[in-house]
Amino acid sequence: MTKKQIKLGVFLMGTGHHIASWRHPDAQADASENVEFFKEVAIKAEQGKLDMLFLSDGLSFNELSHPAEQVRFEPLTLLSVLSTVTKNIGLTGTASTTYNEPFHIARKFSSLDHLSRGRAAWNIVTSYYEAEASNFNQDKHLDHSLRYDRADEFVEVVKGLWDSYEDDALARNKETGEYIKKGKLHTLNHKGEYYSVRGPLNSSRPPQGRPVLVQAGSSEAGTTLAAKQADVIFTAQQTLADAQSFYKKLKDKAVAAGRNRDDIKIMPGVSVYVAETEEKARAKYEELQQLITPEIGLDFLEDYLGIDLSGYDLDGPLPKDIPPTNGNRSRQQLIIELAERENLTIRELYLKIAGSRGHRIIFGSPSQIADQLIEWVDNDAADGFNLMPPYFPGGFTDFIDLVIPELQKRGVFRTEYEGNTLRENLGLQQVPSRYALQQV
Amino acid sequence: MTKKQIKLGVFLMGTGHHIASWRHPDAQADASENVEFFKEVAIKAEQGKLDMLFLSDGLSFNELSHPAEQVRFEPLTLLSVLSTVTKNIGLTGTASTTYNEPFHIARKFSSLDHLSRGRAAWNIVTSYYEAEASNFNQDKHLDHSLRYDRADEFVEVVKGLWDSYEDDALARNKETGEYIKKGKLHTLNHKGEYYSVRGPLNSSRPPQGRPVLVQAGSSEAGTTLAAKQADVIFTAQQTLADAQSFYKKLKDKAVAAGRNRDDIKIMPGVSVYVAETEEKARAKYEELQQLITPEIGLDFLEDYLGIDLSGYDLDGPLPKDIPPTNGNRSRQQLIIELAERENLTIRELYLKIAGSRGHRIIFGSPSQIADQLIEWVDNDAADGFNLMPPYFPGGFTDFIDLVIPELQKRGVFRTEYEGNTLRENLGLQQVPSRYALQQV
Ligand SMILES: Cc1cc2nc3c(=O)[nH]c(=O)nc-3n(C[C@H](O)[C@H](O)[C@H](O)COP(=O)(O)O)c2cc1C
Ligand SMILES: Cc1cc2nc3c(=O)[nH]c(=O)nc-3n(C[C@H](O)[C@H](O)[C@H](O)COP(=O)(O)O)c2cc1C
Repeated sequence: MTKKQIKLGVFLMGTGHHIASWRHPDAQADASENVEFFKEVAIKAEQGKLDMLFLSDGLSFNELSHPAEQVRFEPLTLLSVLSTVTKNIGLTGTASTTYNEPFHIARKFSSLDHLSRGRAAWNIVTSYYEAEASNFNQDKHLDHSLRYDRADEFVEVVKGLWDSYEDDALARNKETGEYIKKGKLHTLNHKGEYYSVRGPLNSSRPPQGRPVLVQAGSSEAGTTLAAKQADVIFTAQQTLADAQSFYKKLKDKAVAAGRNRDDIKIMPGVSVYVAETEEKARAKYEELQQLITPEIGLDFLEDYLGIDLSGYDLDGPLPKDIPPTNGNRSRQQLIIELAERENLTIRELYLKIAGSRGHRIIFGSPSQIADQLIEWVDNDAADGFNLMPPYFPGGFTDFIDLVIPELQKRGVFRTEYEGNTLRENLGLQQVPSRYALQQV
Repeated sequence: MTKKQIKLGVFLMGTGHHIASWRHPDAQADASENVEFFKEVAIKAEQGKLDMLFLSDGLSFNELSHPAEQVRFEPLTLLSVLSTVTKNIGLTGTASTTYNEPFHIARKFSSLDHLSRGRAAWNIVTSYYEAEASNFNQDKHLDHSLRYDRADEFVEVVKGLWDSYEDDALARNKETGEYIKKGKLHTLNHKGEYYSVRGPLNSSRPPQGRPVLVQAGSSEAGTTLAAKQADVIFTAQQTLADAQSFYKKLKDKAVAAGRNRDDIKIMPGVSVYVAETEEKARAKYEELQQLITPEIGLDFLEDYLGIDLSGYDLDGPLPKDIPPTNGNRSRQQLIIELAERENLTIRELYLKIAGSRGHRIIFGSPSQIADQLIEWVDNDAADGFNLMPPYFPGGFTDFIDLVIPELQKRGVFRTEYEGNTLRENLGLQQVPSRYALQQV
């Protein structure tokens, strides 16, 4: 029997996912705005045959929060550049449905899909940064449930616009002068609750038919959207049991939404510290922990909790009754519960989550790391992982150089790309146009 | 005395500016969505030491109009790709103030400026395609004067966001843990008539301080915006006298707005047919004219006039009393007047303007072409030109191979780039941050 194959993405976050990574001696402190840095990482990721690169995004700069990850390239311009130094790897960019228009999003991702010949993916978010509202003419962030309601219609419009042209719509026949084939171009004429978009799109059908859709909601509304619309689902899960229950829940929801279990790939985030021995791997972690100043730690906690902690004793507990954020509520909850469960001081809390922003951290030799990854994949907890390297480039190149060969040796990871498009490499179906379907 | 230097941009429009260019035997019919095509043209343009590439844009597909130029890449994603195959040439993309938000525009162009190390330019348009409205939740296109009113505030917000960080704001000091220097990051807090944008931007100060601003308005409101905000002005002028009066008007308006005459560069569009002899150059034009089918010709006229011409005799006159378009009114007027003045039939009219979409066409040997370009520059009609090659690649490579050396020989065009940024090459001042100014 062939073994279940692991899907792997890498979450490119400036200098790395450890919040003090930019202070690491090997880090390029300006990585988040350094194009050469990103090119090198992208090339390395493709040498490692990873499925995709992932860029998160926000539409604000929050002065209270940790600045290192906030000053950054706009994802679609950067991914366009990265498309030129790679050939097979997927290019996933984040765009918010709350502060964008569906026409622009359909267009940008179609354009990236054409430029990269079928490697574009859209991470659909509803914006978890409350501060974004004030950059878009609004007094306050739209309510969580309203954001998700709008998101669903938004995604439907985008999918509709991508279907504007059938696969063979463009004749471009020099002899006859026929440019577009009659009947192969469709006007969407969408009039819904939140959006009214006529179409057609001014970009022909994307090479993938439909760029890959990624989602990371974890609330009830979030997982419903993900189960209905997404091909890939990101999530933060700390334990095997939690990951299994999330995995089952999402697959069940997908089936309830009329899809197959295999139509969605669930990829929890994981931060890997690898070295010859587990001890040496842990030493790398300790080295980064030493670099966390109280300022960095507090910026980070305040961002997640949505409150100002400056009045509180670092060596005392979190304040009681923190009001629910209108941003990423499930992560806020996770962190408050962690502090309570383990009885942590503020300092202990930020030190604890600093390494991976609430995602799973694993340590070990290449073989120990492989064991831990395979355990989740073999036990219905994951279809793959979204790698969150503690720091770049070292914390990432270690993974490519040490862990990838180990996974390949064990027969759970590709040695060559299966195809040219991201859909092919993820093992997802090509999506036919709704109009082509009608004709069958 | 050194001769006045000519500035040159090239307007990249799919297969070319002649409306039947896609049918030319040498054209790549799919050019508008072919990334390799654009890369080759960009490389050639840089070999010719041109100042900049220019991409126009629209946010709709109009089924009544000529389709060949409408199905195309989104400009910022394409320019990001082109930044990787070039080093010095400017990258100008169009974005509408009517169907965008200032935060997104400030961010995208700052990102492109960082990716290209100081080569980004924004062509500010208010959208001349009426159909765009229906893709952005609106029943009808905003009124012309309202569009320009909003545009002015929009541009002010964008400039403000680009000033969020002073040049040296990012300390990224690994030793001390200081990431952003205190007092060097500024919050815009803009609350205006149309926009309310807090800031700061999540992209540090663009390498050029301010990406180059381009505008092509020709109405009263349009030229006022251009004179106040733009560094480069595009325009369509047919005769020396018209070009001189436009040139004088814009420079005067710039001075009235408190700027120097040299702060704005006026670049009329020109379509050049060049060959060893004038006769051979004209033959190239005739070859393209032969390729215009009535369908192509009508699509094109209907787009500019904003009406359906299908009921009318091709060999009769235009209908009387064509209602004013809410799109590009000055161009509509230009075309109606041309038909009346020269007493043209519908067929004659589209054949006449098909070659250059209302822009100037010149024919000749390299030396004749140089004469005609220099005449305008030496007589206060232009600071340079926006080249509109009749077809790509041939109609463009001819210019680079034949005309550029002639211009260089005559000492009116650079043989090496003056600097690394577009501002430097255009001879424009670096714009200091408003906050740096306050401190002086
Ligand atoms: C790996 C990962 C990446 C994410 N990236 C972004 C992002 O770039 N921008 C954003 O606004 N939200 C991002 N999110 C947040 C999710 O979109 C979502 O808001 C969050 O998981 C909470 O779920 P909920 O919104 O359903 O409560 C990310 C989440 C995860 C797990
Ligand atoms: C060379 C050139 C390029 C232009 N490109 C665009 C464009 O890409 N998108 C657009 O909506 N308008 C474009 N325009 C139209 C102008 O922005 C402007 O609307 C037009 O010149 C008429 O001026 P007015 O709007 O002041 O009446 C262009 C005009 C010129 C001369």
